[in-house]
Amino acid sequence: MPAVEAALRSHPARPTHPDAMSRCIEACYTCAGTCTACGDACLSERDVEGLLACIRQNLDCAAICLATGSVVARSKAGASRQVLESQLSVCAAACRACADECRRHGETHRHCRVCALACNECAQACTEMLAALRAVV
Amino acid sequence: MPAVEAALRSHPARPTHPDAMSRCIEACYTCAGTCTACGDACLSERDVEGLLACIRQNLDCAAICLATGSVVARSKAGASRQVLESQLSVCAAACRACADECRRHGETHRHCRVCALACNECAQACTEMLAALRAVV
Amino acid sequence: MPAVEAALRSHPARPTHPDAMSRCIEACYTCAGTCTACGDACLSERDVEGLLACIRQNLDCAAICLATGSVVARSKAGASRQVLESQLSVCAAACRACADECRRHGETHRHCRVCALACNECAQACTEMLAALRAVV
Amino acid sequence: MPAVEAALRSHPARPTHPDAMSRCIEACYTCAGTCTACGDACLSERDVEGLLACIRQNLDCAAICLATGSVVARSKAGASRQVLESQLSVCAAACRACADECRRHGETHRHCRVCALACNECAQACTEMLAALRAVV
Repeated sequence: MPAVEAALRSHPARPTHPDAMSRCIEACYTCAGTCTACGDACLSERDVEGLLACIRQNLDCAAICLATGSVVARSKAGASRQVLESQLSVCAAACRACADECRRHGETHRHCRVCALACNECAQACTEMLAALRAVV
Repeated sequence: MPAVEAALRSHPARPTHPDAMSRCIEACYTCAGTCTACGDACLSERDVEGLLACIRQNLDCAAICLATGSVVARSKAGASRQVLESQLSVCAAACRACADECRRHGETHRHCRVCALACNECAQACTEMLAALRAVV
Repeated sequence: MPAVEAALRSHPARPTHPDAMSRCIEACYTCAGTCTACGDACLSERDVEGLLACIRQNLDCAAICLATGSVVARSKAGASRQVLESQLSVCAAACRACADECRRHGETHRHCRVCALACNECAQACTEMLAALRAVV
Repeated sequence: MPAVEAALRSHPARPTHPDAMSRCIEACYTCAGTCTACGDACLSERDVEGLLACIRQNLDCAAICLATGSVVARSKAGASRQVLESQLSVCAAACRACADECRRHGETHRHCRVCALACNECAQACTEMLAALRAVV
Protein backbone atom coordinates (compact mmCIF):
# COMPACT_ATOMS: atom_id res chain seq x y z
CA MET A 1 0.00 0.00 0.00
CA PRO A 2 2.22 2.83 -1.19
CA ALA A 3 -0.53 5.35 -0.29
CA VAL A 4 -0.50 4.32 3.38
CA GLU A 5 3.29 4.50 3.50
CA ALA A 6 3.32 7.91 1.78
CA ALA A 7 0.77 9.23 4.28
CA LEU A 8 2.84 7.93 7.19
CA ARG A 9 6.04 9.42 5.73
CA SER A 10 4.47 12.89 5.72
CA HIS A 11 3.07 12.50 9.25
CA PRO A 12 4.36 15.43 11.35
CA ALA A 13 5.14 13.12 14.29
CA ARG A 14 7.59 11.26 12.06
CA PRO A 15 6.84 7.63 12.92
CA THR A 16 10.05 5.68 13.40
CA HIS A 17 9.04 2.72 11.22
CA PRO A 18 6.74 3.84 8.41
CA ASP A 19 7.81 0.85 6.30
CA ALA A 20 7.05 -1.81 8.94
CA MET A 21 3.81 0.02 9.78
CA SER A 22 2.57 0.16 6.21
CA ARG A 23 3.56 -3.47 5.56
CA CYS A 24 1.71 -4.50 8.71
CA ILE A 25 -1.41 -2.48 7.82
CA GLU A 26 -1.42 -3.89 4.30
CA ALA A 27 -0.96 -7.46 5.56
CA CYS A 28 -3.81 -7.02 8.06
CA TYR A 29 -6.19 -5.73 5.41
CA THR A 30 -5.15 -8.30 2.80
CA CYS A 31 -5.65 -11.03 5.40
CA ALA A 32 -9.07 -9.63 6.36
CA GLY A 33 -10.18 -9.56 2.71
CA THR A 34 -8.86 -13.05 2.02
CA CYS A 35 -10.45 -14.50 5.16
CA THR A 36 -13.79 -12.91 4.26
CA ALA A 37 -13.63 -14.33 0.73
CA CYS A 38 -12.46 -17.74 2.00
CA GLY A 39 -15.26 -17.92 4.57
CA ASP A 40 -17.78 -17.10 1.85
CA ALA A 41 -16.27 -19.71 -0.48
CA CYS A 42 -16.44 -22.30 2.33
CA LEU A 43 -20.17 -21.55 2.70
CA SER A 44 -20.63 -22.52 -0.95
CA GLU A 45 -18.72 -25.82 -0.70
CA ARG A 46 -20.59 -29.12 -0.71
CA ASP A 47 -18.78 -30.16 2.47
CA VAL A 48 -19.79 -27.00 4.31
CA GLU A 49 -20.49 -29.02 7.47
CA GLY A 50 -16.81 -29.96 7.62
CA LEU A 51 -15.79 -26.31 7.21
CA LEU A 52 -17.74 -24.68 10.04
CA ALA A 53 -14.69 -24.20 12.27
CA CYS A 54 -12.83 -22.73 9.29
CA ILE A 55 -15.64 -20.26 8.55
CA ARG A 56 -15.73 -19.12 12.18
CA GLN A 57 -11.98 -18.69 12.35
CA ASN A 58 -12.06 -16.78 9.06
CA LEU A 59 -14.61 -14.36 10.48
CA ASP A 60 -12.80 -13.89 13.79
CA CYS A 61 -9.47 -13.42 12.03
CA ALA A 62 -10.97 -10.84 9.66
CA ALA A 63 -12.50 -8.83 12.54
CA ILE A 64 -9.25 -8.88 14.53
CA CYS A 65 -7.14 -7.94 11.49
CA LEU A 66 -9.35 -4.96 10.60
CA ALA A 67 -9.13 -3.60 14.15
CA THR A 68 -5.38 -4.21 14.31
CA GLY A 69 -4.77 -2.46 10.99
CA SER A 70 -6.52 0.64 12.22
CA VAL A 71 -4.78 0.62 15.62
CA VAL A 72 -1.36 0.30 13.94
CA ALA A 73 -2.11 3.35 11.76
CA ARG A 74 -2.40 5.72 14.73
CA SER A 75 0.40 7.33 16.77
CA LYS A 76 1.07 5.82 20.17
CA ALA A 77 2.53 6.95 23.45
CA GLY A 78 2.51 5.57 26.97
CA ALA A 79 -0.22 3.08 27.80
CA SER A 80 -1.58 2.98 24.26
CA ARG A 81 1.80 1.68 23.11
CA GLN A 82 1.33 -1.39 25.29
CA VAL A 83 -2.17 -1.87 23.97
CA LEU A 84 -0.77 -1.80 20.45
CA GLU A 85 1.84 -4.43 21.30
CA SER A 86 -0.78 -6.70 22.88
CA GLN A 87 -3.14 -6.26 19.94
CA LEU A 88 -0.34 -7.15 17.52
CA SER A 89 0.37 -10.34 19.52
CA VAL A 90 -3.29 -11.37 19.48
CA CYS A 91 -3.53 -10.64 15.78
CA ALA A 92 -0.49 -12.81 15.07
CA ALA A 93 -2.00 -15.61 17.18
CA ALA A 94 -5.39 -15.30 15.45
CA CYS A 95 -3.69 -15.46 12.05
CA ARG A 96 -1.65 -18.53 13.00
CA ALA A 97 -4.75 -20.28 14.36
CA CYS A 98 -6.68 -19.50 11.18
CA ALA A 99 -3.75 -20.61 9.01
CA ASP A 100 -3.60 -23.92 10.87
CA GLU A 101 -7.30 -24.54 10.34
CA CYS A 102 -7.19 -23.48 6.68
CA ARG A 103 -4.21 -25.70 6.00
CA ARG A 104 -6.28 -28.72 7.07
CA HIS A 105 -8.54 -28.07 4.06
CA GLY A 106 -5.82 -26.85 1.75
CA GLU A 107 -5.52 -30.01 -0.31
CA THR A 108 -9.22 -29.95 -1.14
CA HIS A 109 -9.89 -26.22 -1.38
CA ARG A 110 -7.58 -23.78 -3.07
CA HIS A 111 -9.16 -20.78 -1.28
CA CYS A 112 -8.14 -22.33 2.05
CA ARG A 113 -4.60 -22.81 0.77
CA VAL A 114 -4.42 -19.19 -0.38
CA CYS A 115 -5.95 -18.00 2.89
CA ALA A 116 -3.42 -19.92 4.99
CA LEU A 117 -0.64 -18.08 3.15
CA ALA A 118 -2.24 -14.66 3.68
CA CYS A 119 -2.72 -15.47 7.38
CA ASN A 120 0.90 -16.52 7.74
CA GLU A 121 2.12 -13.38 6.03
CA CYS A 122 0.01 -11.27 8.36
CA ALA A 123 1.31 -13.13 11.43
CA GLN A 124 4.82 -12.45 10.16
CA ALA A 125 4.15 -8.76 9.52
CA CYS A 126 2.68 -8.33 13.01
CA THR A 127 5.70 -10.05 14.53
CA GLU A 128 8.08 -7.79 12.60
CA MET A 129 6.11 -4.72 13.63
CA LEU A 130 6.41 -5.85 17.26
CA ALA A 131 10.16 -6.35 16.85
CA ALA A 132 10.51 -2.88 15.36
CA LEU A 133 8.56 -1.35 18.24
CA ARG A 134 10.66 -3.11 20.83
CA ALA A 135 13.93 -2.21 19.14
CA VAL A 136 13.01 1.46 19.47
CA VAL A 137 12.06 1.28 23.15
CA MET B 1 -29.25 -6.19 24.68
CA PRO B 2 -32.06 -8.65 25.25
CA ALA B 3 -32.06 -9.45 21.51
CA VAL B 4 -28.47 -10.67 21.59
CA GLU B 5 -29.12 -12.79 24.66
CA ALA B 6 -32.30 -14.25 23.15
CA ALA B 7 -30.41 -15.16 19.98
CA LEU B 8 -27.66 -16.83 22.02
CA ARG B 9 -30.20 -18.72 24.14
CA SER B 10 -31.70 -20.29 21.01
CA HIS B 11 -28.27 -21.16 19.56
CA PRO B 12 -28.21 -24.91 18.84
CA ALA B 13 -24.70 -25.25 20.31
CA ARG B 14 -26.09 -24.05 23.66
CA PRO B 15 -23.39 -21.62 24.77
CA THR B 16 -22.58 -22.16 28.45
CA HIS B 17 -22.72 -18.48 29.41
CA PRO B 18 -25.26 -16.61 27.26
CA ASP B 19 -25.73 -14.02 30.01
CA ALA B 20 -22.01 -13.17 30.41
CA MET B 21 -21.64 -13.22 26.62
CA SER B 22 -24.49 -10.84 25.95
CA ARG B 23 -23.39 -8.51 28.77
CA CYS B 24 -19.88 -8.48 27.32
CA ILE B 25 -21.10 -7.85 23.75
CA GLU B 26 -23.35 -5.05 24.96
CA ALA B 27 -20.57 -3.47 27.03
CA CYS B 28 -18.17 -3.63 24.06
CA TYR B 29 -20.64 -1.94 21.73
CA THR B 30 -21.71 0.66 24.29
CA CYS B 31 -18.06 1.45 24.94
CA ALA B 32 -17.34 1.73 21.21
CA GLY B 33 -20.25 4.13 20.72
CA THR B 34 -19.31 6.22 23.74
CA CYS B 35 -15.64 6.38 22.74
CA THR B 36 -16.61 7.45 19.22
CA ALA B 37 -18.90 10.19 20.56
CA CYS B 38 -16.31 11.29 23.15
CA GLY B 39 -13.56 11.50 20.54
CA ASP B 40 -15.81 13.61 18.34
CA ALA B 41 -16.73 15.86 21.27
CA CYS B 42 -13.01 16.27 22.11
CA LEU B 43 -12.42 17.43 18.52
CA SER B 44 -14.92 20.26 19.12
CA GLU B 45 -13.39 21.41 22.42
CA ARG B 46 -11.38 24.64 22.54
CA ASP B 47 -8.51 22.81 24.21
CA VAL B 48 -8.38 20.17 21.45
CA GLU B 49 -4.58 20.29 21.51
CA GLY B 50 -4.62 19.00 25.08
CA LEU B 51 -6.99 16.18 24.09
CA LEU B 52 -5.08 14.56 21.23
CA ALA B 53 -3.98 11.53 23.26
CA CYS B 54 -7.57 11.13 24.45
CA ILE B 55 -8.93 11.23 20.89
CA ARG B 56 -6.45 8.60 19.74
CA GLN B 57 -7.18 6.32 22.67
CA ASN B 58 -10.91 6.76 22.04
CA LEU B 59 -10.48 5.65 18.44
CA ASP B 60 -8.25 2.68 19.29
CA CYS B 61 -10.56 1.59 22.08
CA ALA B 62 -13.60 1.81 19.79
CA ALA B 63 -11.92 -0.30 17.08
CA ILE B 64 -10.80 -2.94 19.58
CA CYS B 65 -14.22 -3.08 21.28
CA LEU B 66 -16.08 -3.55 17.98
CA ALA B 67 -13.81 -6.45 16.99
CA THR B 68 -14.03 -8.01 20.44
CA GLY B 69 -17.83 -7.80 20.50
CA SER B 70 -18.05 -9.68 17.24
CA VAL B 71 -15.48 -12.31 18.26
CA VAL B 72 -17.36 -12.95 21.54
CA ALA B 73 -20.59 -13.54 19.61
CA ARG B 74 -19.24 -16.56 17.73
CA SER B 75 -18.83 -20.15 19.00
CA LYS B 76 -15.31 -21.22 19.89
CA ALA B 77 -13.37 -24.45 20.12
CA GLY B 78 -9.70 -25.32 20.36
CA ALA B 79 -7.28 -22.67 19.24
CA SER B 80 -9.96 -20.06 18.60
CA ARG B 81 -10.89 -20.28 22.27
CA GLN B 82 -7.41 -19.07 23.19
CA VAL B 83 -7.65 -16.26 20.66
CA LEU B 84 -10.91 -15.20 22.28
CA GLU B 85 -9.32 -15.15 25.73
CA SER B 86 -6.37 -13.08 24.50
CA GLN B 87 -8.65 -10.67 22.66
CA LEU B 88 -10.75 -10.21 25.81
CA SER B 89 -7.58 -9.42 27.80
CA VAL B 90 -6.42 -6.83 25.25
CA CYS B 91 -9.88 -5.28 25.17
CA ALA B 92 -9.93 -4.96 28.96
CA ALA B 93 -6.47 -3.37 28.85
CA ALA B 94 -7.46 -0.95 26.06
CA CYS B 95 -10.56 0.05 28.02
CA ARG B 96 -8.58 0.63 31.21
CA ALA B 97 -5.98 2.70 29.34
CA CYS B 98 -8.71 4.80 27.71
CA ALA B 99 -10.51 5.21 31.05
CA ASP B 100 -7.28 6.44 32.66
CA GLU B 101 -6.76 9.02 29.93
CA CYS B 102 -10.41 10.14 29.94
CA ARG B 103 -10.39 10.51 33.71
CA ARG B 104 -7.59 13.09 33.40
CA HIS B 105 -10.05 15.34 31.54
CA GLY B 106 -13.12 14.33 33.52
CA GLU B 107 -13.29 17.43 35.69
CA THR B 108 -13.36 19.69 32.64
CA HIS B 109 -15.35 17.59 30.17
CA ARG B 110 -18.42 15.62 31.09
CA HIS B 111 -18.13 13.43 27.94
CA CYS B 112 -14.73 12.25 29.17
CA ARG B 113 -16.20 11.44 32.58
CA VAL B 114 -19.04 9.46 30.99
CA CYS B 115 -16.61 7.72 28.67
CA ALA B 116 -14.32 6.66 31.51
CA LEU B 117 -17.29 4.94 33.14
CA ALA B 118 -18.29 3.12 29.94
CA CYS B 119 -14.67 2.00 29.47
CA ASN B 120 -14.47 0.70 33.03
CA GLU B 121 -17.74 -1.19 32.64
CA CYS B 122 -16.46 -2.78 29.47
CA ALA B 123 -13.17 -3.77 31.12
CA GLN B 124 -15.20 -5.35 33.91
CA ALA B 125 -17.50 -7.20 31.49
CA CYS B 126 -14.50 -8.57 29.56
CA THR B 127 -12.89 -9.71 32.81
CA GLU B 128 -16.09 -11.46 33.90
CA MET B 129 -16.41 -13.13 30.51
CA LEU B 130 -12.83 -14.37 30.87
CA ALA B 131 -13.60 -15.72 34.35
CA ALA B 132 -16.68 -17.52 33.02
CA LEU B 133 -14.66 -19.09 30.20
CA ARG B 134 -11.96 -20.29 32.55
CA ALA B 135 -14.45 -21.69 35.05
CA VAL B 136 -15.85 -23.92 32.32
CA VAL B 137 -12.50 -25.20 31.12
CA MET C 1 -27.23 3.29 25.72
CA PRO C 2 -27.46 6.07 28.29
CA ALA C 3 -23.66 6.49 28.13
CA VAL C 4 -23.75 7.37 24.42
CA GLU C 5 -26.60 9.82 24.95
CA ALA C 6 -24.84 11.42 27.94
CA ALA C 7 -21.66 11.83 25.87
CA LEU C 8 -23.63 13.42 23.04
CA ARG C 9 -25.48 15.75 25.44
CA SER C 10 -22.16 17.15 26.68
CA HIS C 11 -20.76 17.54 23.14
CA PRO C 12 -19.69 21.18 22.70
CA ALA C 13 -21.25 21.31 19.21
CA ARG C 14 -24.65 20.59 20.80
CA PRO C 15 -26.09 18.03 18.40
CA THR C 16 -29.72 18.86 17.63
CA HIS C 17 -31.02 15.30 18.16
CA PRO C 18 -28.98 13.50 20.81
CA ASP C 19 -31.92 11.22 21.60
CA ALA C 20 -32.53 10.08 18.00
CA MET C 21 -28.77 9.73 17.53
CA SER C 22 -28.25 7.58 20.59
CA ARG C 23 -31.30 5.43 19.79
CA CYS C 24 -29.99 4.94 16.26
CA ILE C 25 -26.46 4.07 17.44
CA GLU C 26 -27.84 1.62 20.00
CA ALA C 27 -30.14 0.01 17.43
CA CYS C 28 -27.27 -0.36 14.95
CA TYR C 29 -25.02 -2.03 17.50
CA THR C 30 -27.78 -4.26 18.89
CA CYS C 31 -28.63 -5.31 15.35
CA ALA C 32 -24.98 -6.01 14.57
CA GLY C 33 -24.60 -8.17 17.69
CA THR C 34 -27.85 -10.04 17.04
CA CYS C 35 -27.00 -10.64 13.37
CA THR C 36 -23.55 -11.96 14.35
CA ALA C 37 -25.06 -14.32 16.93
CA CYS C 38 -27.83 -15.39 14.52
CA GLY C 39 -25.36 -16.12 11.74
CA ASP C 40 -23.29 -18.23 14.13
CA ALA C 41 -26.39 -20.06 15.34
CA CYS C 42 -27.39 -20.74 11.71
CA LEU C 43 -23.96 -22.31 11.14
CA SER C 44 -24.73 -24.79 13.93
CA GLU C 45 -28.17 -25.76 12.61
CA ARG C 46 -28.70 -29.13 10.92
CA ASP C 47 -30.27 -27.43 7.94
CA VAL C 48 -27.28 -25.10 7.47
CA GLU C 49 -27.48 -25.58 3.70
CA GLY C 50 -30.92 -23.95 3.70
CA LEU C 51 -29.58 -21.03 5.76
CA LEU C 52 -26.65 -19.89 3.63
CA ALA C 53 -28.41 -16.79 2.30
CA CYS C 54 -29.44 -15.93 5.85
CA ILE C 55 -25.86 -16.25 7.13
CA ARG C 56 -24.55 -14.00 4.37
CA GLN C 57 -27.23 -11.38 4.96
CA ASN C 58 -26.51 -11.52 8.69
CA LEU C 59 -22.84 -10.82 8.06
CA ASP C 60 -23.48 -8.02 5.57
CA CYS C 61 -26.07 -6.43 7.84
CA ALA C 62 -23.69 -6.58 10.82
CA ALA C 63 -20.86 -4.93 8.87
CA ILE C 64 -23.12 -2.17 7.56
CA CYS C 65 -24.70 -1.54 11.00
CA LEU C 66 -21.30 -1.22 12.71
CA ALA C 67 -20.12 1.33 10.15
CA THR C 68 -23.40 3.24 10.31
CA GLY C 69 -23.34 3.40 14.11
CA SER C 70 -19.91 4.96 14.05
CA VAL C 71 -20.77 7.44 11.27
CA VAL C 72 -23.90 8.57 13.15
CA ALA C 73 -21.80 9.27 16.27
CA ARG C 74 -19.70 11.95 14.56
CA SER C 75 -20.64 15.58 13.84
CA LYS C 76 -21.56 16.41 10.26
CA ALA C 77 -21.52 19.42 8.04
CA GLY C 78 -21.82 19.97 4.30
CA ALA C 79 -21.03 16.98 2.10
CA SER C 80 -20.55 14.59 5.01
CA ARG C 81 -24.14 15.26 6.00
CA GLN C 82 -25.30 13.82 2.69
CA VAL C 83 -23.04 10.83 3.14
CA LEU C 84 -24.65 10.24 6.54
CA GLU C 85 -28.15 10.39 5.05
CA SER C 86 -27.22 7.93 2.29
CA GLN C 87 -25.54 5.57 4.74
CA LEU C 88 -28.64 5.63 6.96
CA SER C 89 -30.80 4.74 3.93
CA VAL C 90 -28.56 1.82 2.97
CA CYS C 91 -28.50 0.61 6.56
CA ALA C 92 -32.30 0.67 6.74
CA ALA C 93 -32.47 -1.25 3.44
CA ALA C 94 -29.89 -3.82 4.60
CA CYS C 95 -31.83 -4.33 7.84
CA ARG C 96 -35.13 -4.79 6.01
CA ALA C 97 -33.55 -7.27 3.58
CA CYS C 98 -32.04 -9.24 6.46
CA ALA C 99 -35.33 -9.15 8.38
CA ASP C 100 -37.17 -10.51 5.33
CA GLU C 101 -34.73 -13.38 4.97
CA CYS C 102 -34.71 -14.15 8.72
CA ARG C 103 -38.49 -14.15 8.84
CA ARG C 104 -38.52 -16.98 6.30
CA HIS C 105 -36.80 -19.17 8.91
CA GLY C 106 -38.55 -17.69 11.93
CA GLU C 107 -41.00 -20.53 12.46
CA THR C 108 -38.19 -23.07 12.68
CA HIS C 109 -35.46 -21.02 14.37
CA ARG C 110 -36.06 -18.70 17.28
CA HIS C 111 -32.74 -16.85 16.68
CA CYS C 112 -33.97 -15.90 13.21
CA ARG C 113 -37.25 -14.63 14.68
CA VAL C 114 -35.37 -12.57 17.27
CA CYS C 115 -32.97 -11.28 14.62
CA ALA C 116 -35.80 -10.19 12.31
CA LEU C 117 -37.15 -8.05 15.15
CA ALA C 118 -33.75 -6.46 15.88
CA CYS C 119 -33.31 -5.72 12.16
CA ASN C 120 -36.73 -4.12 11.93
CA GLU C 121 -36.05 -1.98 14.99
CA CYS C 122 -32.78 -0.83 13.47
CA ALA C 123 -34.45 -0.01 10.13
CA GLN C 124 -37.00 2.02 12.08
CA ALA C 125 -34.34 3.86 14.13
CA CYS C 126 -32.40 4.73 10.96
CA THR C 127 -35.58 6.02 9.32
CA GLU C 128 -36.37 8.17 12.36
CA MET C 129 -32.83 9.52 12.43
CA LEU C 130 -33.21 10.45 8.77
CA ALA C 131 -36.50 12.20 9.49
CA ALA C 132 -34.92 14.13 12.35
CA LEU C 133 -32.04 15.22 10.11
CA ARG C 134 -34.37 16.39 7.37
CA ALA C 135 -36.64 18.24 9.78
CA VAL C 136 -33.66 20.32 10.90
CA VAL C 137 -32.48 21.20 7.41
CA MET D 1 -4.28 -8.02 -3.40
CA PRO D 2 -3.47 -11.17 -5.37
CA ALA D 3 -4.52 -13.30 -2.36
CA VAL D 4 -8.06 -11.94 -2.41
CA GLU D 5 -8.35 -12.46 -6.14
CA ALA D 6 -6.96 -16.01 -5.89
CA ALA D 7 -9.47 -16.82 -3.16
CA LEU D 8 -12.32 -15.44 -5.27
CA ARG D 9 -11.14 -17.36 -8.34
CA SER D 10 -11.38 -20.66 -6.45
CA HIS D 11 -14.82 -19.80 -4.99
CA PRO D 12 -17.22 -22.62 -5.95
CA ALA D 13 -19.96 -20.11 -6.86
CA ARG D 14 -17.65 -18.71 -9.55
CA PRO D 15 -18.13 -14.97 -9.12
CA THR D 16 -18.55 -13.29 -12.50
CA HIS D 17 -16.06 -10.48 -11.83
CA PRO D 18 -13.28 -11.64 -9.51
CA ASP D 19 -10.94 -9.01 -10.92
CA ALA D 20 -13.27 -6.03 -10.36
CA MET D 21 -14.18 -7.44 -6.95
CA SER D 22 -10.59 -7.83 -5.79
CA ARG D 23 -9.64 -4.39 -7.14
CA CYS D 24 -12.61 -2.87 -5.31
CA ILE D 25 -11.81 -4.67 -2.04
CA GLU D 26 -8.17 -3.62 -2.27
CA ALA D 27 -9.10 -0.01 -3.03
CA CYS D 28 -11.53 0.07 -0.09
CA TYR D 29 -8.92 -1.24 2.34
CA THR D 30 -6.14 0.96 0.98
CA CYS D 31 -8.44 3.96 1.28
CA ALA D 32 -9.40 3.01 4.84
CA GLY D 33 -5.74 2.67 5.85
CA THR D 34 -4.77 5.94 4.18
CA CYS D 35 -7.70 7.84 5.70
CA THR D 36 -6.83 6.49 9.16
CA ALA D 37 -3.19 7.53 8.76
CA CYS D 38 -4.17 10.93 7.30
CA GLY D 39 -6.59 11.64 10.14
CA ASP D 40 -3.88 10.79 12.65
CA ALA D 41 -1.38 12.99 10.84
CA CYS D 42 -3.92 15.86 10.82
CA LEU D 43 -4.23 15.50 14.61
CA SER D 44 -0.49 16.15 14.88
CA GLU D 45 -0.49 19.26 12.65
CA ARG D 46 -0.11 22.72 14.19
CA ASP D 47 -3.23 23.88 12.36
CA VAL D 48 -5.32 21.02 13.75
CA GLU D 49 -8.24 23.40 14.31
CA GLY D 50 -8.43 24.00 10.56
CA LEU D 51 -8.41 20.26 9.91
CA LEU D 52 -11.32 19.10 12.07
CA ALA D 53 -13.68 18.55 9.14
CA CYS D 54 -10.93 16.64 7.37
CA ILE D 55 -10.33 14.37 10.39
CA ARG D 56 -14.04 13.59 10.68
CA GLN D 57 -14.39 12.84 6.99
CA ASN D 58 -11.30 10.62 7.17
CA LEU D 59 -12.85 8.62 10.00
CA ASP D 60 -16.24 8.31 8.31
CA CYS D 61 -14.67 7.35 5.00
CA ALA D 62 -12.50 4.70 6.70
CA ALA D 63 -15.49 3.14 8.49
CA ILE D 64 -17.58 3.06 5.31
CA CYS D 65 -14.72 1.65 3.21
CA LEU D 66 -14.05 -1.19 5.68
CA ALA D 67 -17.72 -2.20 5.69
CA THR D 68 -17.96 -1.94 1.90
CA GLY D 69 -14.84 -4.07 1.37
CA SER D 70 -16.29 -6.84 3.46
CA VAL D 71 -19.73 -6.65 1.82
CA VAL D 72 -18.15 -6.83 -1.66
CA ALA D 73 -16.25 -9.99 -0.67
CA ARG D 74 -19.42 -12.02 -0.06
CA SER D 75 -21.71 -13.67 -2.65
CA LYS D 76 -24.98 -11.92 -3.36
CA ALA D 77 -28.40 -12.86 -4.61
CA GLY D 78 -31.77 -11.14 -4.66
CA ALA D 79 -32.25 -8.35 -2.15
CA SER D 80 -28.68 -8.45 -0.90
CA ARG D 81 -27.53 -7.62 -4.41
CA GLN D 82 -29.39 -4.31 -4.21
CA VAL D 83 -27.90 -3.62 -0.79
CA LEU D 84 -24.44 -4.17 -2.28
CA GLU D 85 -25.15 -1.73 -5.11
CA SER D 86 -26.40 0.93 -2.69
CA GLN D 87 -23.44 0.42 -0.37
CA LEU D 88 -21.05 0.80 -3.31
CA SER D 89 -22.76 4.07 -4.26
CA VAL D 90 -22.50 5.46 -0.74
CA CYS D 91 -18.87 4.39 -0.52
CA ALA D 92 -18.06 6.17 -3.79
CA ALA D 93 -19.84 9.30 -2.50
CA ALA D 94 -18.02 9.17 0.86
CA CYS D 95 -14.70 8.81 -0.94
CA ARG D 96 -15.42 11.75 -3.25
CA ALA D 97 -16.50 13.91 -0.30
CA CYS D 98 -13.34 13.02 1.62
CA ALA D 99 -11.17 13.62 -1.46
CA ASP D 100 -12.72 17.07 -1.90
CA GLU D 101 -12.01 17.99 1.71
CA CYS D 102 -8.47 16.56 1.62
CA ARG D 103 -7.69 18.42 -1.59
CA ARG D 104 -8.39 21.71 0.19
CA HIS D 105 -5.38 20.99 2.43
CA GLY D 106 -3.28 19.28 -0.21
CA GLU D 107 -0.97 22.21 -0.87
CA THR D 108 -0.01 22.41 2.79
CA HIS D 109 -0.10 18.75 3.80
CA ARG D 110 1.28 15.95 1.70
CA HIS D 111 -0.74 13.30 3.62
CA CYS D 112 -3.93 15.07 2.54
CA ARG D 113 -2.74 15.08 -1.07
CA VAL D 114 -1.94 11.37 -0.91
CA CYS D 115 -5.25 10.66 0.80
CA ALA D 116 -7.25 12.52 -1.84
CA LEU D 117 -5.70 10.26 -4.47
CA ALA D 118 -6.49 7.08 -2.53
CA CYS D 119 -10.08 8.28 -2.04
CA ASN D 120 -10.47 9.02 -5.73
CA GLU D 121 -9.10 5.61 -6.68
CA CYS D 122 -11.55 3.96 -4.32
CA ALA D 123 -14.47 5.97 -5.70
CA GLN D 124 -13.39 4.85 -9.16
CA ALA D 125 -13.08 1.17 -8.15
CA CYS D 126 -16.55 1.25 -6.54
CA THR D 127 -18.00 2.82 -9.69
CA GLU D 128 -16.39 0.15 -11.88
CA MET D 129 -17.65 -2.60 -9.60
CA LEU D 130 -21.15 -1.14 -9.92
CA ALA D 131 -20.83 -1.05 -13.70
CA ALA D 132 -19.68 -4.68 -13.75
CA LEU D 133 -22.63 -5.72 -11.58
CA ARG D 134 -25.13 -3.91 -13.78
CA ALA D 135 -23.63 -5.29 -16.99
CA VAL D 136 -24.29 -8.80 -15.69
CA VAL D 137 -27.88 -8.17 -14.68
